[in-house]
Amino acid sequence: MTMTEIKIELTTNKKDKPDINNLGFGRFFTDHMFVVDYTEGKGWHEPRIIPYQPISLDPASKVFHYAQTVFEGLKAYLTVDNKVLLFRPESNFKRLNASNERLCIPVIDEELALEALKQLVEVDREWIPNAPGTSLYIRPFIIATEPCLGVASSQNFQFIIILSPVGSYYKEGIKPVKILVEQQYVRAVAGGTGEAKTGGNYASSLKGQELANKDGYSQTLWLDGREKQYIEEVGSMNIFFKINGTVVTPALNGSILHGITRDSMIQLLKAKNIPVEERQISIHDITEAYHNGTLEEAFGTGTAAVISPIGELKWLDERIIINNGEIGEVTQMLYDTLTGIQNGSIPDQFNWTIKL
Amino acid sequence: MTMTEIKIELTTNKKDKPDINNLGFGRFFTDHMFVVDYTEGKGWHEPRIIPYQPISLDPASKVFHYAQTVFEGLKAYLTVDNKVLLFRPESNFKRLNASNERLCIPVIDEELALEALKQLVEVDREWIPNAPGTSLYIRPFIIATEPCLGVASSQNFQFIIILSPVGSYYKEGIKPVKILVEQQYVRAVAGGTGEAKTGGNYASSLKGQELANKDGYSQTLWLDGREKQYIEEVGSMNIFFKINGTVVTPALNGSILHGITRDSMIQLLKAKNIPVEERQISIHDITEAYHNGTLEEAFGTGTAAVISPIGELKWLDERIIINNGEIGEVTQMLYDTLTGIQNGSIPDQFNWTIKL
Repeated sequence: MTMTEIKIELTTNKKDKPDINNLGFGRFFTDHMFVVDYTEGKGWHEPRIIPYQPISLDPASKVFHYAQTVFEGLKAYLTVDNKVLLFRPESNFKRLNASNERLCIPVIDEELALEALKQLVEVDREWIPNAPGTSLYIRPFIIATEPCLGVASSQNFQFIIILSPVGSYYKEGIKPVKILVEQQYVRAVAGGTGEAKTGGNYASSLKGQELANKDGYSQTLWLDGREKQYIEEVGSMNIFFKINGTVVTPALNGSILHGITRDSMIQLLKAKNIPVEERQISIHDITEAYHNGTLEEAFGTGTAAVISPIGELKWLDERIIINNGEIGEVTQMLYDTLTGIQNGSIPDQFNWTIKL
Repeated sequence: MTMTEIKIELTTNKKDKPDINNLGFGRFFTDHMFVVDYTEGKGWHEPRIIPYQPISLDPASKVFHYAQTVFEGLKAYLTVDNKVLLFRPESNFKRLNASNERLCIPVIDEELALEALKQLVEVDREWIPNAPGTSLYIRPFIIATEPCLGVASSQNFQFIIILSPVGSYYKEGIKPVKILVEQQYVRAVAGGTGEAKTGGNYASSLKGQELANKDGYSQTLWLDGREKQYIEEVGSMNIFFKINGTVVTPALNGSILHGITRDSMIQLLKAKNIPVEERQISIHDITEAYHNGTLEEAFGTGTAAVISPIGELKWLDERIIINNGEIGEVTQMLYDTLTGIQNGSIPDQFNWTIKL
């Protein structure tokens, strides 16, 4: 399957563009989508860009019942000189295939996927918003479509890419968030699917998030499923702490997502000669650092927000206030540097961006 | 919302019935389906029976990305005198609401659901197969349909019921299966979604099952996610052992499905004065019982197979052969009794069946 085989059917009925000041996240979608089908014995076939349209599936399709699905998230940015930059898309398709392996979904051709993505973004280029902090969010996903209720891997799949213009996460400047350390619910456990980007992890997280929101906290900090003491992720982001001058983040242990923003932050810190460690971190390490005055900064990282500074952690009855509830210096530097690379205003020494 | 509000639109184009000798499981579906919509602020509305048809959803619908979905499984049986029996349907809708609670899905009206189910089965009554061991499998499920990529509970859902005529699980008599005790992968963990009937649990289980199949084993025996030593489920069934005259099954600990067949077996055993215990069971308890000669029987229970006797367990390098690989006396008695009650050939002293 080569790039020349991607058929393109353009829409004859373009949608109105949404108000750039009210984009929000993942609420509006562009005029086109990419689709390729998988059939057992035939492989992936018929890659095509078509008008954005509903998916029509038999009610018995496995995705509805057994959640055999994986996804990715990345962004395209418009530079000041009107060029389009993609941020580390090869990493996303590589991770998608790692998720596929865990979920018994046939691997995709990463080169074809990247080519399809480039062509799709080109076709819908006019949808990329140009206001500060805005971008085009890209959502590749795969769903199991075989209409059969036996619990076994599907014989058919669809790999789809949709595009959504998204607003700035921080319209009024970056504001640190309050996080609740979850004690009852668990997002993932070693041996489960925590490392894969698959729907079940997110479904599992909704309840904790709902309860945190009710208590006035914006996200949940997830502890490990075995001992409920080791820090894993925050909401749907990876997490970092700065303790006594060293930035630490949980090591990839099998139940933590291999965040691409996480990896970028680690590389940035190394390039800036700021000590950074990937290691097991318990919630007790954090309370101890708080009590002895060495807990300096904390932040989540992910594609949607890039960085989300943490101003408060609630653990049992204790409120852990970090950096007086304000964004820390290293957090701000990382945010400025990474978003600068992403939107082309800072030179990309890492070769992370791909120009369309 | 009352039963009188269920609108019925009959198909004008009935499908051909499948060959009763080649039904398999969940491959053929009847002429109609039940659908009811949920909209935030409006609640569940427009319950309707309509011709079986594809579901058309926006590609951004949350079910495709975040697996916010729950389901149930139960059966309708045709008696020898041509009556239709449903087996414990209220228990299924009660459990569906327990799953809804965990997955942040609005609860359904259990009475309406039961009425809808009865009317749907009545409409497609001619699809209930009448050969020995066959039945009409009923699949209620709920999917999140809001087209938005934010990780939060959906504002819209569909609750759907589909029906599938299914063949006998044991066309050539009950044959004990070989089971691999899984050491690497985990199905669920306390605090996760293991107790709920939600897609993510099944997606998570596919890999272990695939590897077991490759090794010549038909299913995986799942150990707990924390210590990987306590027995939880087998494939997608609950599990029982008979040890030294007592039937034991893992206690409901938060990560084990509250099986309705499991509960029925426990009640049947009590009624027959056979000792039965729900308790924590480690894999070491089983190997010990095997070595001292007290491991007498083992079987899985679930709606699809009712009972699946286990003839062999593989744990590390040891092959644990149970009852010489043959079905045990108690297993056979439970199978005969429960299927007898289900198909109306044995009086139902428990009031489990509902006649249409």
